[in-house]
Amino acid sequence: MIVRQVRFTLRPRPRGFHLVTREVTERLADLAGIRTGLCLLFLQHSSASLALNENADPTVREDFEAHTRRLIPDGAPHYRHTLEGPDDLPAHLKAALFGSSLTLPIAEGRLALGTWQGIYLGEHREHGGPRSVVATLIGEER
Amino acid sequence: MIVRQVRFTLRPRPRGFHLVTREVTERLADLAGIRTGLCLLFLQHSSASLALNENADPTVREDFEAHTRRLIPDGAPHYRHTLEGPDDLPAHLKAALFGSSLTLPIAEGRLALGTWQGIYLGEHREHGGPRSVVATLIGEER
Amino acid sequence: MIVRQVRFTLRPRPRGFHLVTREVTERLADLAGIRTGLCLLFLQHSSASLALNENADPTVREDFEAHTRRLIPDGAPHYRHTLEGPDDLPAHLKAALFGSSLTLPIAEGRLALGTWQGIYLGEHREHGGPRSVVATLIGEER
Repeated sequence: MIVRQVRFTLRPRPRGFHLVTREVTERLADLAGIRTGLCLLFLQHSSASLALNENADPTVREDFEAHTRRLIPDGAPHYRHTLEGPDDLPAHLKAALFGSSLTLPIAEGRLALGTWQGIYLGEHREHGGPRSVVATLIGEER
Repeated sequence: MIVRQVRFTLRPRPRGFHLVTREVTERLADLAGIRTGLCLLFLQHSSASLALNENADPTVREDFEAHTRRLIPDGAPHYRHTLEGPDDLPAHLKAALFGSSLTLPIAEGRLALGTWQGIYLGEHREHGGPRSVVATLIGEER
Repeated sequence: MIVRQVRFTLRPRPRGFHLVTREVTERLADLAGIRTGLCLLFLQHSSASLALNENADPTVREDFEAHTRRLIPDGAPHYRHTLEGPDDLPAHLKAALFGSSLTLPIAEGRLALGTWQGIYLGEHREHGGPRSVVATLIGEER
């Protein structure tokens, strides 16, 4: 049993949901030599999120953005945390609801995602900038 | 310290929230011989979810379904991802919000759930079919 | 590689979102002697939640409470699970959406939270009482 930790940055993206599976797996190219185990992807931010969802049709990501804007609208009159603009509080609440991390199984030396599962970065700020990830992998060596 | 991985399928269920604690624990009957550790239950799908909630009164699950249908209605006119029908996009968004996985503590050779906690499968499609789970268990042997 | 488990109770808090980072880290003072690894914080309840978010401005937590009350209102007429009062079903649904647990990276013997990340307890009942946590830590010894 071994544990490995890798830190990396996801490049800046515009507000919305983005498929980052390839960018993540490239940074974890050899999964630290682990054959069977767990991988925690942890975003060190409070206004962006990680989620798993459909990896094929980009309209899923567009609809996620459109519908979450309706559920948690920018600049609602009852928000008190407004210092950084109308997208500030909604970004925090979306980050908490979708969550800042993913725990994924490693099987046969690969992330054991389903056929249609991809990793989404939810960028909930208009200008979020690069996003730092701490990846922690635990398991049996190959 | 050991790691074990078990794959199994949850039988098809109608749309809604379902208590699957017994079906899951039967498949993990001996928790791979682990006394203290972690258990990741990971659903390899993007239109169903796993959650923890009240394990006694079925009206909780009925209310979850009724209220999430109001928050994320079927066939809203702004959805663009509609190819598979009015329940398609809502199923994806619910899966991302409730989440595709659960990480549970193992204590004294059992899942350390609270007295009132049960494992819910959120089946968000009208005809979701069987749902594949990858269970990964890490910890100290008994 | 070692695994350690610690059980503790978060003191009772009023309904709302509360920053509990200090209370949690005090209970995990030495992180069980782990230098690199994972920490699962698991709440054994179905009407409270754990989340990560902004650790500085208390209005974020006030806005979370105000806005989630709009999304999942107390005593909506379509709720059937109402035995314990108008806050009962909303508490369960919020607990499932925010989630009952957090999986956090341990790096250099500390929880590797981002600068602005704090641990929130979402107390979703009017009178929730003390809340039990099972903390499970896995990783390499210092």
